[in-house]
Amino acid sequence: MFLSDTFSVNERGHLTVGGCDTIDLAGEFGTPLYVLDENKIRSTCRMYQDSIQQYYHGKGCALYASKTFSCKEICRIVQQEGLGLDVVSGGELYTALEAGFPPERIHFHGSNKTAHEIQFALDAGVGHFVVDNLTELHTLDAMARQMGKTADISLRIKPGIDAHTHEAVMTGQIDSKFGFALETGEALEAVRAAIALQNVCLKGLHNHIGSQIFDVAPFQEAARVMTNFIAQIKKETGTAIEELNLGGGFGIKYTENDQPVPYDAYMREISQTIFQNCEDLGIEIPYIYMEPGRSIVGEAGLTLYQIGSVKHIPNVRTYVSVDGGMTDNPRYALYGSEYTVLAAAQPDAPATQTVTIAGRCCESGDLIQEHIPLPQVQPGDILAVLCTGAYNYSMASNYNRVPRPAVVMVRDGVPRLAIRRESYEDLVRNDV
Amino acid sequence: MFLSDTFSVNERGHLTVGGCDTIDLAGEFGTPLYVLDENKIRSTCRMYQDSIQQYYHGKGCALYASKTFSCKEICRIVQQEGLGLDVVSGGELYTALEAGFPPERIHFHGSNKTAHEIQFALDAGVGHFVVDNLTELHTLDAMARQMGKTADISLRIKPGIDAHTHEAVMTGQIDSKFGFALETGEALEAVRAAIALQNVCLKGLHNHIGSQIFDVAPFQEAARVMTNFIAQIKKETGTAIEELNLGGGFGIKYTENDQPVPYDAYMREISQTIFQNCEDLGIEIPYIYMEPGRSIVGEAGLTLYQIGSVKHIPNVRTYVSVDGGMTDNPRYALYGSEYTVLAAAQPDAPATQTVTIAGRCCESGDLIQEHIPLPQVQPGDILAVLCTGAYNYSMASNYNRVPRPAVVMVRDGVPRLAIRRESYEDLVRNDV
Repeated sequence: MFLSDTFSVNERGHLTVGGCDTIDLAGEFGTPLYVLDENKIRSTCRMYQDSIQQYYHGKGCALYASKTFSCKEICRIVQQEGLGLDVVSGGELYTALEAGFPPERIHFHGSNKTAHEIQFALDAGVGHFVVDNLTELHTLDAMARQMGKTADISLRIKPGIDAHTHEAVMTGQIDSKFGFALETGEALEAVRAAIALQNVCLKGLHNHIGSQIFDVAPFQEAARVMTNFIAQIKKETGTAIEELNLGGGFGIKYTENDQPVPYDAYMREISQTIFQNCEDLGIEIPYIYMEPGRSIVGEAGLTLYQIGSVKHIPNVRTYVSVDGGMTDNPRYALYGSEYTVLAAAQPDAPATQTVTIAGRCCESGDLIQEHIPLPQVQPGDILAVLCTGAYNYSMASNYNRVPRPAVVMVRDGVPRLAIRRESYEDLVRNDV
Repeated sequence: MFLSDTFSVNERGHLTVGGCDTIDLAGEFGTPLYVLDENKIRSTCRMYQDSIQQYYHGKGCALYASKTFSCKEICRIVQQEGLGLDVVSGGELYTALEAGFPPERIHFHGSNKTAHEIQFALDAGVGHFVVDNLTELHTLDAMARQMGKTADISLRIKPGIDAHTHEAVMTGQIDSKFGFALETGEALEAVRAAIALQNVCLKGLHNHIGSQIFDVAPFQEAARVMTNFIAQIKKETGTAIEELNLGGGFGIKYTENDQPVPYDAYMREISQTIFQNCEDLGIEIPYIYMEPGRSIVGEAGLTLYQIGSVKHIPNVRTYVSVDGGMTDNPRYALYGSEYTVLAAAQPDAPATQTVTIAGRCCESGDLIQEHIPLPQVQPGDILAVLCTGAYNYSMASNYNRVPRPAVVMVRDGVPRLAIRRESYEDLVRNDV
């Protein structure tokens, strides 16, 4: 009924997450509040690892895409579940290292790594660099040489796939800031350049076609394109590419209208595609990486808000104002993203009105959702926005100098703080 | 040539801001870097105060809208220039108080102030509450009563004006989350409710029609509507409204295509409108407040980035990737906002190409500008994005766990740090 089994209703009629009463959570930790269900995160991690075991003979590993939600506690959880980690900045790498994540299981992504970040990653012993462009390739090689090291790398390839998703999150087509284009010959040139260098070791290829994708077909197509390219590289350069990173982008169920592919079904299909194509091409089956992020944490989370005012404008609309907004969830302002909103004290009450959920910022565009069904609510009531585990905390700002909410991890009905609420002192900490 | 007199070219041919060489600033303080010209901020503050003196007999005061850029140093500067302050949250209030801003000159705005924030403002002795809705009105009255205080208030009114601007920043029309609608009689009901309460004192009315507006006409129309309403209130309730807050929203020159009204011309026109209408209505001329924000800091600032890679995709486009992006300036991602971008070492070199400036985040939508002219540039070069003083630092996030840049204030060629660059330690400070 509530999108995923993470959410339920208890005997008081209240919405629960991971077995915790959301009204109690709002009371204990305050609002706005991000809540994440640890069991849901762990079970999804396991499902990815198990599906690689089941359908791909275990010859692969899932890397959690930490840009979705990077914090020490989530790094600890995915490490315990045996996943690797995808980081896209020095800050994400620092977070992972602070959480004790083994650097050799970290892959460093990003279309514009700074020299300082590359040095930091080399110093830390990061296992793998996903190289985006030639400037980075040569910088990395030179820095590794200076340290007497060899860095394992993949090259990020644009496979030329249209992933049928929002323009702002589509990444596999030729008109993208990410990676090397296949069609233009740029990718093969980059491969030759990498092979020629002494202090990088070309282990693999990487592609990522976009985000929040609901079809298997574009992923299969990308896998075909990439294995074809591996065969071409073998033929033209003699170099065997051992690893293939298939990226992430698996859609999740934000509303009842979303119909994600079961993630293990994706793995089954994609494995078949790779096995078949490698056999046809006469090449070895590559070790694979997948990079789920949203699908690991997205449906595991919700955000709790308290209503401050309800403004009914006759013949226009009803604004329900909450104590958060685009500061903790900018996705509606950025992309018009859809979410499911429930009254936490009466999640299964029938809707009696259509409302707009407005944030607290002094900006008209600060809306959480427009034109959504809701039962009667009043100031003081708690609202829950479901499936906010991904790209909410990670994209949060201090616009209007609003402190970022706390993050609570719940497990089997027991909550614990994962990130403390920002204080006013935090806001001015760096002000001179 | 470079939009405003804040920006110039020195004998080395480099772009300067407030007399400082931008290449030197990037070298000394690192990139990305926000830079603000203190003299520009001060002169604009004075111009507002002077124009009220000149055209409105000094019966008014400008309040700096600190949501544009709230930090201790800017609070100090506008205080020294004699302006009041408009804050929209406990965080902005805290910042102002930490900077030593006199609370009695602070006006507290916001469409959804929390009870905690109202209490904080009452405790601090904030001079004026701009009340948005009836829930807030009654909460404020009850809290003030408990403290044995009376709070001076205005009511935020929607005058029903279409300000011809971006939907996300249009606020004066009836379909807005802000304030009380005139057309429906809601505003007059709120006036009666406020008059009936014992612990709030209705001093004024407030309206704000939107942001980045280039016409005087909608402001004049709003002033007419509001003075008419003052006369109506006088007639129907006997209460004299002494203060009128005209809000802000004055457009600035982001590109050569923008043609802002000179701010003192605005004051001249609006004064005439109010004088004439008050005479026609037979009411006293109200004390006025204006709330400039963007126009005080916007053109005073720029952002410096270092180019990490240049990716020329034949027949598609050229991506110039910089070491910042939507994390420090989300306005292109949010609204498609236009900016002027210059190569800092050769700002007056003729453009030889059309490029897209891409940010460093792992998101296709992380662009600073698309399809803009630029001379040839290469990795390592410094780019300057002009007029980023407003809604850049204030909207910045740690997406991808990218630390927020430092802010440098420059004056007569001398730079000083106003906000320290965030450290990796800052990013995980609240992680448990």
